[in-house]
Amino acid sequence: MTAFEYLKKTEKQRTDELLQFLSFASVSAQSKHNKDVAACADWLKAHLTRIGFKTELYPTKGHSVVFAEYFVDKKLPTVLYYGHYDVQPPEPLDLWKTPPFKPDIRDGYFYARGATDDKGQTFTHIKGLEAIIKTTGTLPINVKFMIEGEEEIASANLPAFMKKNKKLLNADICVVSDTAQFNKTTPAVTFGLRGISPAELFVYGPNRDVHSGSFGGSITNPANALCQMVAQLHDKNGKVAIPGFYKDIKPAPKWERKQFKKLPHSDAKYQKSLGVPALAGEKGFSTLERIWIRPTLDVNGITSGYQGEGSKTIIPAYASCKITMRLVPDMDPDDVANKLEKFLKKIAPKSVRIKLNKFHGGKGVNVPTDGPWLEAAASAIKAGFGKTPVFMKEGGSIPVVTDFKDLLGLDTLLIGFAQHDDNIHSPNERFRIVDFEKGCKTGAALPTELSKVKA
Amino acid sequence: MTAFEYLKKTEKQRTDELLQFLSFASVSAQSKHNKDVAACADWLKAHLTRIGFKTELYPTKGHSVVFAEYFVDKKLPTVLYYGHYDVQPPEPLDLWKTPPFKPDIRDGYFYARGATDDKGQTFTHIKGLEAIIKTTGTLPINVKFMIEGEEEIASANLPAFMKKNKKLLNADICVVSDTAQFNKTTPAVTFGLRGISPAELFVYGPNRDVHSGSFGGSITNPANALCQMVAQLHDKNGKVAIPGFYKDIKPAPKWERKQFKKLPHSDAKYQKSLGVPALAGEKGFSTLERIWIRPTLDVNGITSGYQGEGSKTIIPAYASCKITMRLVPDMDPDDVANKLEKFLKKIAPKSVRIKLNKFHGGKGVNVPTDGPWLEAAASAIKAGFGKTPVFMKEGGSIPVVTDFKDLLGLDTLLIGFAQHDDNIHSPNERFRIVDFEKGCKTGAALPTELSKVKA
Repeated sequence: MTAFEYLKKTEKQRTDELLQFLSFASVSAQSKHNKDVAACADWLKAHLTRIGFKTELYPTKGHSVVFAEYFVDKKLPTVLYYGHYDVQPPEPLDLWKTPPFKPDIRDGYFYARGATDDKGQTFTHIKGLEAIIKTTGTLPINVKFMIEGEEEIASANLPAFMKKNKKLLNADICVVSDTAQFNKTTPAVTFGLRGISPAELFVYGPNRDVHSGSFGGSITNPANALCQMVAQLHDKNGKVAIPGFYKDIKPAPKWERKQFKKLPHSDAKYQKSLGVPALAGEKGFSTLERIWIRPTLDVNGITSGYQGEGSKTIIPAYASCKITMRLVPDMDPDDVANKLEKFLKKIAPKSVRIKLNKFHGGKGVNVPTDGPWLEAAASAIKAGFGKTPVFMKEGGSIPVVTDFKDLLGLDTLLIGFAQHDDNIHSPNERFRIVDFEKGCKTGAALPTELSKVKA
Repeated sequence: MTAFEYLKKTEKQRTDELLQFLSFASVSAQSKHNKDVAACADWLKAHLTRIGFKTELYPTKGHSVVFAEYFVDKKLPTVLYYGHYDVQPPEPLDLWKTPPFKPDIRDGYFYARGATDDKGQTFTHIKGLEAIIKTTGTLPINVKFMIEGEEEIASANLPAFMKKNKKLLNADICVVSDTAQFNKTTPAVTFGLRGISPAELFVYGPNRDVHSGSFGGSITNPANALCQMVAQLHDKNGKVAIPGFYKDIKPAPKWERKQFKKLPHSDAKYQKSLGVPALAGEKGFSTLERIWIRPTLDVNGITSGYQGEGSKTIIPAYASCKITMRLVPDMDPDDVANKLEKFLKKIAPKSVRIKLNKFHGGKGVNVPTDGPWLEAAASAIKAGFGKTPVFMKEGGSIPVVTDFKDLLGLDTLLIGFAQHDDNIHSPNERFRIVDFEKGCKTGAALPTELSKVKA
């Protein structure tokens, strides 16, 4: 029996196991879910043990890292697979058609928080490797898994873990499946990711909510002030207006922008899929350029004052907003956060107090666009999907990819199986069953392709 | 025995009765308290009956109006007293030192929801009138009480009641005690109130929350767009930037601004009491002018995206904010709301959809600043407080005062006994015992003073 045949035979069981994995409410950002995160790590460890891996839970200051190893021969290449078992908060819950942690199968999709980001995608490699082990009794490469529980909170403790365990993580190449395909019929290898710098701005006004009639007009309203400050973060051309924001950016190579133009992208379809009346963004750049090779600043949420039914005529005591800046590889997250802070302090009205909480960010990264590893990845995708992948970038961030390079000296193969309408970070997150199945086949084909590189 | 002596003698009983009145959870906004609102109306009716009034409960589509009448002689002036027995929601409950509907006496204050807004203040007139009836066997004026149960929900059904019962409500002058004194040692007559025009703005972006990495830069973020729009509602001088906003406003009379300058107001103390690093507002106006005779626009609350713990890297599907504009008497609430809507539509980016919900507003009002009624009110306050009151305005709104003028052709005497730190609409609402006692004395002095006007 071949690995592909094994996968076909075990589809029902594999589905059941994925649904188990998805049913853990492993929300790393919400401390009320700490037990669920831990239970999910335990389940994952047990699952990898059962397949034949030597496993270990590594505690961190936050959530544990699930580490697993399958050593065959030191002459074979060693591949470090990365994934994460934590998920985004599921809110707003009322927009989910079925509960986020009661996985549902319908319309050709698995529906659950984490279905594609990143439990489902991580599972493709686990099951692909299982198929080889079960049909050949071994693997053609040495495998290590590092599956973390804090990706959705910016991998706060992972760099420390990596620094401390360099030997443990020693490998020849990394594999990460936490990105998307180009579209529903076009698989892809991703060769660049944006970085991220998250922050939260607080604007404080009066020492309590005060009556907007009795006091309105005599003090600065922190909600209005926050709006005025946020409005100044962009200029009229859609550029970020923080002084020095673009300073470190080198122009994108011509071949890259040329390559993007060749991709089967349609602005009209993209706009329709998002339901917006028009696309928008930085002047002088195409949509793909705007999301892949240009930095941005987005408000992720705003809180202030009375948000219930009807009206409450107050001047709120404070207003706050969460901000993420997406960075291109030349930009430093801390430097950018400092520039944001300096600018906000400069433009803040003297009649309010402000505070900016700066969170752990991550650099953007470019991975090599040629070489034998990349060819091996492309061959595996072709075997799994029956179609040659395109090469593209991704606007999201996977800080660990930068850390692999900086801390371990390792390049990463970004082989993503998601679709852009899989609703990651949104209600009704889903993973297309056909992508999961083809992902598992790619996962089963990849080790053999990678084994040829140093063979 | 004089009325004042009666008040002194009955202080204990009067306090007990006030505590009974305050113990009803007559929260008009919360349907779970409908029975409490009704029970409070029954108690109030019974109390007025016991004093000697002819009383009647008038049902409305919402909560009942308590009407009471003490007719003496048609040659005497008829005074229509207005008050409300409903109260604001008490939430957040955890910030109350003692429960909102278990009245507590401490530090010289009555603590309870409604203590000053408006049960305590309404009660001063009831007890003042009782003192005259009990000591003279009659009243020097004809008295009508209209005490409603829906003031805290914008008096939704009161205008209809007033239109239907014009004859019943026929009077020479209205008296309302639902405003504040100038400060702790300075009683006041209020001669103007601002109007209000409330609205809620919705800005719609993508059809779902989307990943701020994968999509950031290619579409307009509705939270950022809302900020940009709100920011444009004021100019650099703190003026509201909606075209035509100030068009209908006549300049304040010189004597008025002069009169405000004479009041014992301290910007430093005011700033300290609010805990703000600096005061702010429309350029060219003083603090008192800014809150009393200039219109304003304040955001009362903003909602968008993720507001929980930690970060969630999304572009929110929408952002919304509640807005109240405070108006001076020359401005029309609907007209101003339409101007706001027109301006927002103009400045909204074409890449988002917007909607403005406009709510029922109320006109600002000026009451005459001289004449025999006002002199009578000032004399009564002097008798009650032992101090001549100052004349001031109030930035808040009492829509019924406009209705008295428009529907019944009646001027109103605004005689308020509250203090600005009585925490109305906030946790730990309170009423200073000394203000209650002096208020009762004013209530006992007022009828005789008013009787002189047409005597």
